[in-house]
Amino acid sequence: MSDTITVRGYVATDVRSTTAESGLAIAGFRICTNERRYDREAGTWFDGQTNWYAVSCFRQLATNAGVSIHKGDRVIVTGRLKVRQWVSDEGRSGTSVDIDADSVGHDLMWGTANYRRNLQDRL
Amino acid sequence: MSDTITVRGYVATDVRSTTAESGLAIAGFRICTNERRYDREAGTWFDGQTNWYAVSCFRQLATNAGVSIHKGDRVIVTGRLKVRQWVSDEGRSGTSVDIDADSVGHDLMWGTANYRRNLQDRL
Amino acid sequence: MSDTITVRGYVATDVRSTTAESGLAIAGFRICTNERRYDREAGTWFDGQTNWYAVSCFRQLATNAGVSIHKGDRVIVTGRLKVRQWVSDEGRSGTSVDIDADSVGHDLMWGTANYRRNLQDRL
Amino acid sequence: MSDTITVRGYVATDVRSTTAESGLAIAGFRICTNERRYDREAGTWFDGQTNWYAVSCFRQLATNAGVSIHKGDRVIVTGRLKVRQWVSDEGRSGTSVDIDADSVGHDLMWGTANYRRNLQDRL
Repeated sequence: MSDTITVRGYVATDVRSTTAESGLAIAGFRICTNERRYDREAGTWFDGQTNWYAVSCFRQLATNAGVSIHKGDRVIVTGRLKVRQWVSDEGRSGTSVDIDADSVGHDLMWGTANYRRNLQDRL
Repeated sequence: MSDTITVRGYVATDVRSTTAESGLAIAGFRICTNERRYDREAGTWFDGQTNWYAVSCFRQLATNAGVSIHKGDRVIVTGRLKVRQWVSDEGRSGTSVDIDADSVGHDLMWGTANYRRNLQDRL
Repeated sequence: MSDTITVRGYVATDVRSTTAESGLAIAGFRICTNERRYDREAGTWFDGQTNWYAVSCFRQLATNAGVSIHKGDRVIVTGRLKVRQWVSDEGRSGTSVDIDADSVGHDLMWGTANYRRNLQDRL
Repeated sequence: MSDTITVRGYVATDVRSTTAESGLAIAGFRICTNERRYDREAGTWFDGQTNWYAVSCFRQLATNAGVSIHKGDRVIVTGRLKVRQWVSDEGRSGTSVDIDADSVGHDLMWGTANYRRNLQDRL
């Protein structure tokens, strides 16, 4: 019951990397996904729903995402969906739709990549 | 009812690229996935089930995968599962578990990547 | 790129059935899902994240859900996630996390069911 | 990396219920799923790939499935995919594509259901 989801989207922000006081590496960025739907009568594709997500990466994934992912990239994200209510110090409130990423990869439908495995995974 | 699945696995073969008579670009490779399970009594992780899949990529994804993916890479694959029965010319038969990929990306949990979007996607 | 998700949750409202002017049957209800996490140090399970979703059903699924699903039931929902921004007539705004259901079923982990196939499916 | 999948299919066998020596309740049945594809040129739907799965249920889910699911029902199954190689006593071998179910529910796209929650879940 952990609401896992896989989405393919467009990185809309730079990656923001931080380190928690505990030492945990964290990286975050926002993506949007565009549903493409087929209109049978017109025989053409059109844009449907656009969803926005805040993606969070932790530990080694955060470190690797921080140096690999850039605004404008297309990515695959698989992880756990978290719908969060937030209230700001100024009293504003809202809903954030987050994905705590299990993993992230560049979407090879739209580009090529040179991949280099981390040293500790090659031993 | 299209049996979609997302798996994270290890590329166990070189990528085999071909072009169908229709001109369709096709790339194929095999991956294995290892389930990691936690033994609560022992307090340790251990290897569970290993699954093998034949991954097929088509069109631009095939072209990009052909130059980007190599044996030993770790990848995320999302697509449609197809369980196929086969019979060889010599009369042998078996079952192949295939994924027709919607997309593939390198798994950034295990390494870094330089990504270059295709020109036609940047226009 | 249609952001499909499968969740298991608890039906928190009655089902609201309507018919659009076009004649389309629609049924809607809200569910919440509770993540259960394991605390390795304490050796116990605890409640993690709670997500809320508005589920929409259409056509035959709407008709069947309307007579089958009740507040308090546990269900499996599979469909497409849609994150919607709304503004009310009074100027309030918010975010709604919806699932347009491909299908819904009672969760047999938590109860039993007598199922009766629709007549047109039995012909 | 646990290869989770959700499928919607047709129950092709009776449910076989057993109890392991450890006391664990187990229920198993086979399902097939039919991909429906749209032929844009002809403007019609046609049957694509058919997949077969062996579904395994455990504990309370096995008990509930045993009294709720019957041959001919349409169900939603969500769980972990396991591709298993088997060899019989007579030396034959093959591949079985199994789903260890996290949960199962009747597919309300195709019928209606009376659901009764287990007593222990209502306390």
